[in-house]
Amino acid sequence: MKIQLALDRITIKQATALIELTEPFVDLVEVGTSLIKQYGMESIHEIKKAFPLKTIVADIKTIDNATYESKMSFEAGADITTVMGVSPIPTIEKCIEIAEKYDKQIMIDLLNTSEKKKKQLYSYAKKHVIFCHHVSKDEQELSGGRVLSLKKRYSNNTAIAGGITLEALPELAKVKPEILIVGSAITKADNPRKIAKQFQRRLKELW
Amino acid sequence: MKIQLALDRITIKQATALIELTEPFVDLVEVGTSLIKQYGMESIHEIKKAFPLKTIVADIKTIDNATYESKMSFEAGADITTVMGVSPIPTIEKCIEIAEKYDKQIMIDLLNTSEKKKKQLYSYAKKHVIFCHHVSKDEQELSGGRVLSLKKRYSNNTAIAGGITLEALPELAKVKPEILIVGSAITKADNPRKIAKQFQRRLKELW
Repeated sequence: MKIQLALDRITIKQATALIELTEPFVDLVEVGTSLIKQYGMESIHEIKKAFPLKTIVADIKTIDNATYESKMSFEAGADITTVMGVSPIPTIEKCIEIAEKYDKQIMIDLLNTSEKKKKQLYSYAKKHVIFCHHVSKDEQELSGGRVLSLKKRYSNNTAIAGGITLEALPELAKVKPEILIVGSAITKADNPRKIAKQFQRRLKELW
Repeated sequence: MKIQLALDRITIKQATALIELTEPFVDLVEVGTSLIKQYGMESIHEIKKAFPLKTIVADIKTIDNATYESKMSFEAGADITTVMGVSPIPTIEKCIEIAEKYDKQIMIDLLNTSEKKKKQLYSYAKKHVIFCHHVSKDEQELSGGRVLSLKKRYSNNTAIAGGITLEALPELAKVKPEILIVGSAITKADNPRKIAKQFQRRLKELW
């Protein structure tokens, strides 16, 4: 079980400060889409440079131009880069091909992806692929919280994202995803280090 | 009829030089997704600063975090910002709301959007909304060219994108989209100014 700290809607400097505070308790660091769109590849580069031993996830949300975007992301320092499950199949296949070539990983973000398409995508399960079950921020805001329906035990190489709090951990422990993506529950806490530590402790108890 | 010049996979400086060359013949200038992901909001800001009178389309391809991304894009200088048709409905509704608030426009990119979802989205047709029929770059590469099937005459506030060349214009003239998005046919030409001028002339003849 791993914790991925998602950094969004802040500056690169604020992101770096948050990683410094929480580093011992998180396994992966996500440079959020909002940082990439606001600061470009500099956001990935600066964070990887400051934390070379951390696994960096670049949430670039590729939906076209797969080769260019995936290469750009890996070359900026990402260990894992994201592609949308709602993309055309050739885009997803290209991203996987680039990940294999760089011996890095692709996270397929299943946001708003139909059940039919998900089943099709599961056939791509292999070493370089991670599946991310994701409730969008905009849907969370509308529903007042998490709306992801957890149906079964998840396989390895599965991540879950979308409004995850400490309170949600017992429910999530039942389905055992490999990666929990946590954003504002840690980044917006009064004491991010303390909350990150609590996440790690609860995960050790529950998983 | 308008021409939108799409700028992708180049530096901000190269983009600026291309706009200088082609400016009299293009109506809208698109800061491509690859520029936004590589350089962040600086790409929009610099291009709007250099060409304050041009309509700037920021191809930010929002698929979540609608309010933040749309505001960021408009505040950087975009007149039109994009959202994916495959996004959850709350994301698209939020983008339209922000566009109305700023009195700017949202372009809904219908890349890989199902016919059913498209019909649902057409109900959002209004002043602040443009629909973009789009064949992805990755699909074009696989098929060796354009694969968009043109079915009928398009309404106002419709754009068409994906591998458009001078040769495709007679076919496109039959369906009369309001905006033609042209990228590499102009940007990769030996003489971009000459080709942009030819596009403008052919459009005047055909439309």
